[in-house]
Amino acid sequence: MSELQTVRGMRDLLGPEMEIRNYLKSIAVDVFTCYGYEPLDSPAMELWETLSAKGGEEVEAETFKFTDKGDREVGLRFDLTVPLARIVASNLHLPKPFKRYAIGKAWRYDRPQAGRYREFLQADADIIGSDSPAADAEVVLLALEFARRTFGKDYIVKVNNRKVLRGLIEVAGVSENLANGCFRAMDKLEKIGKNGVQDELQKRGISESATEFLLGVVGVKGKNKAIFSEFRQILKGSKIGLEGTAELEFMADIFDSCEVNEYIEFDISLARGLDYYTGPVFEGKYLGEPDVGSILAGGRYDNLVEKFGGPSTPATGISLGLDRIVDILLEQDYASKLETDLDVFFAPINRDMVKHGMRLRNILVEMDFKCDIDLMDRPLGTLLELADSKNASYTIIVGERDLKKGVVSLRNMKTKETETVNLKEFRNALPELLER
Amino acid sequence: MSELQTVRGMRDLLGPEMEIRNYLKSIAVDVFTCYGYEPLDSPAMELWETLSAKGGEEVEAETFKFTDKGDREVGLRFDLTVPLARIVASNLHLPKPFKRYAIGKAWRYDRPQAGRYREFLQADADIIGSDSPAADAEVVLLALEFARRTFGKDYIVKVNNRKVLRGLIEVAGVSENLANGCFRAMDKLEKIGKNGVQDELQKRGISESATEFLLGVVGVKGKNKAIFSEFRQILKGSKIGLEGTAELEFMADIFDSCEVNEYIEFDISLARGLDYYTGPVFEGKYLGEPDVGSILAGGRYDNLVEKFGGPSTPATGISLGLDRIVDILLEQDYASKLETDLDVFFAPINRDMVKHGMRLRNILVEMDFKCDIDLMDRPLGTLLELADSKNASYTIIVGERDLKKGVVSLRNMKTKETETVNLKEFRNALPELLER
Repeated sequence: MSELQTVRGMRDLLGPEMEIRNYLKSIAVDVFTCYGYEPLDSPAMELWETLSAKGGEEVEAETFKFTDKGDREVGLRFDLTVPLARIVASNLHLPKPFKRYAIGKAWRYDRPQAGRYREFLQADADIIGSDSPAADAEVVLLALEFARRTFGKDYIVKVNNRKVLRGLIEVAGVSENLANGCFRAMDKLEKIGKNGVQDELQKRGISESATEFLLGVVGVKGKNKAIFSEFRQILKGSKIGLEGTAELEFMADIFDSCEVNEYIEFDISLARGLDYYTGPVFEGKYLGEPDVGSILAGGRYDNLVEKFGGPSTPATGISLGLDRIVDILLEQDYASKLETDLDVFFAPINRDMVKHGMRLRNILVEMDFKCDIDLMDRPLGTLLELADSKNASYTIIVGERDLKKGVVSLRNMKTKETETVNLKEFRNALPELLER
Repeated sequence: MSELQTVRGMRDLLGPEMEIRNYLKSIAVDVFTCYGYEPLDSPAMELWETLSAKGGEEVEAETFKFTDKGDREVGLRFDLTVPLARIVASNLHLPKPFKRYAIGKAWRYDRPQAGRYREFLQADADIIGSDSPAADAEVVLLALEFARRTFGKDYIVKVNNRKVLRGLIEVAGVSENLANGCFRAMDKLEKIGKNGVQDELQKRGISESATEFLLGVVGVKGKNKAIFSEFRQILKGSKIGLEGTAELEFMADIFDSCEVNEYIEFDISLARGLDYYTGPVFEGKYLGEPDVGSILAGGRYDNLVEKFGGPSTPATGISLGLDRIVDILLEQDYASKLETDLDVFFAPINRDMVKHGMRLRNILVEMDFKCDIDLMDRPLGTLLELADSKNASYTIIVGERDLKKGVVSLRNMKTKETETVNLKEFRNALPELLER
């Protein structure tokens, strides 16, 4: 038989990568819970009518879609926002604001490339039912707290507002139906430079004067509130643009108050790809190595629940790209900082000793120590080497003669010293001995 | 637009069910880690050639199978064992024994019914590379420890050995090709009674004398080692049957030593449905209400890795059915025992106060307190009611006049007493105040 592979663009995860991913998941749960979000889980699979309700160009091309045995069109979810919108639209009794988090996989039929997989893990926090920019600020704060607890510094969260972008379009005199294309072009500034943006705008049929205006303002950005006088100058006369600027200022006040401005940059070009955003948008990037692209992103999407058949409902949220953050921490050798080593390796000197080792191991497991035991009837020398290779702090040697005397041998794997532990005192003495 | 549904047989999970599921997942991770298992994650989707390599009658009928955009036949995994077998078969460098745990969803195109979903969550622990019955005993011990930490008592784990069953067939004179059908019939004793088993055996073409012999022994079971003299009596002359009995005795010695016999029952009729088991098999049932069927199950499968193109590799494992255990704990009102309530609800008395509330909230979140804040500009009276309905221990009222004096009001939601906290002392004083 030929070697069996994973599906293209998907991967197995084990070893340090997996340890880091589990760690990130647990930190995400802690942070989400601390900020008052409740967990929600939804199926990997949705009806096609649900997935397609989101709209947008890419859904058909990017979804793993198929027909099930009951002849229904279904597909794997491509994000965690669509299921949330479905649930909110069909559960009108949910309290408002409804703050939920979800950690789960999503699937996209993308072209596989470095750091981009067809199956990926997301951790999302969303607030449904509040139209206050305080809600937008909150999801950003939550992402910053997650960053603080994991990769620390060296990152920036760019913030803008779709209303600001709509204001720019208005001032530039671009018609509404060209707006989204315009936003996408401007969003690419960092990737393709000003000339690239110019080409793209012209390709999309934007007039020369509008292109000139947009190129003049693209790249206006700043880390403190002074930037908003520039925003207001540019957006003069656009009601929607000024409204968006005021919302950003409200958020900036919160970031000032929470003393997190060093991580925030207001950037008039930031659009985020998704058509469904309606208000503030945000995108976080890690500034160190490796460059993994955007690690967190989100924004306000006040029209989405309505698209799914629900009432008009304001909503905002943020998504942490856990896979990419794993790549960052892996580079920092983070796994070695996680406490995954064994406390005790049990070495029964023969097969008859296994049951005694298992009993003693169970006593330690009940107290939450990490313990392994040989299951291969290997000789003691091999077992001590094995305990070393597993970074076990201690080995407990369970031998026949010792047991008859009512003792076992506890070997410190660092100092190589061995002491004798009386079995009667095992339960009481071990915790202290192991934590020395 | 009509109301959007979930895919048939799949469900959204939120509220207490979801809190309990998350809790069970974290306990499972703790227990697996304590017993020395490392985490592994694999894609939801596998190539059809992988899924079908397992063999067995149901794979084709029960798999969510489809053709992807690249014209490859793929399917959603129906368990966590098949991906493990693929990984072991194609990663020959893995240390032996390789002890891995996996917590993840699997999908089966079953007929939906109470407690049985087309998407379900499993938590598996497996040992690859050890042929010792000590390994089989270990995965059972691990399941007992999980039970101890969650639903506690009122359950039984039945244990048998496929070799014992093969011995029975040998003694009864049933031909090998009828063996699996025979095992399935005997396994149904509790569901369909002796008459049912008799009908089923005859339907499967078992001779009258063999049926008589099997009906005479079906139901032989016991909680202590005395039962093995009965096993040996029945299996007299069958080498494989006596070998299986000796393995069970070795496991029984370990269970005795670990003082867990009250949870174990050796049952000569237990077969477990899956054809790939080759040695010890186990199945756990909760004995209280609600009756959710089997909550954990597993066994030895020494031939599976070979079927996936790897070398001959002994393997054993256990799977915890987390969804069903959620149902048990839900009935016990377990969610109310989980600490999911808010520590503090922040009530800013107007929109300008939000930024101050957010700053103070962030200070508490950094110290891992659970805090929420109003994002809807609601009046104070409403906010206090809300804090009550969220079971918040405290409300911190952030008001303009208080702030000018450099203080906020901390209201104990149980005693209804309010005290004033100086902002300069906030960071130092709050932990103690909240934990009173």
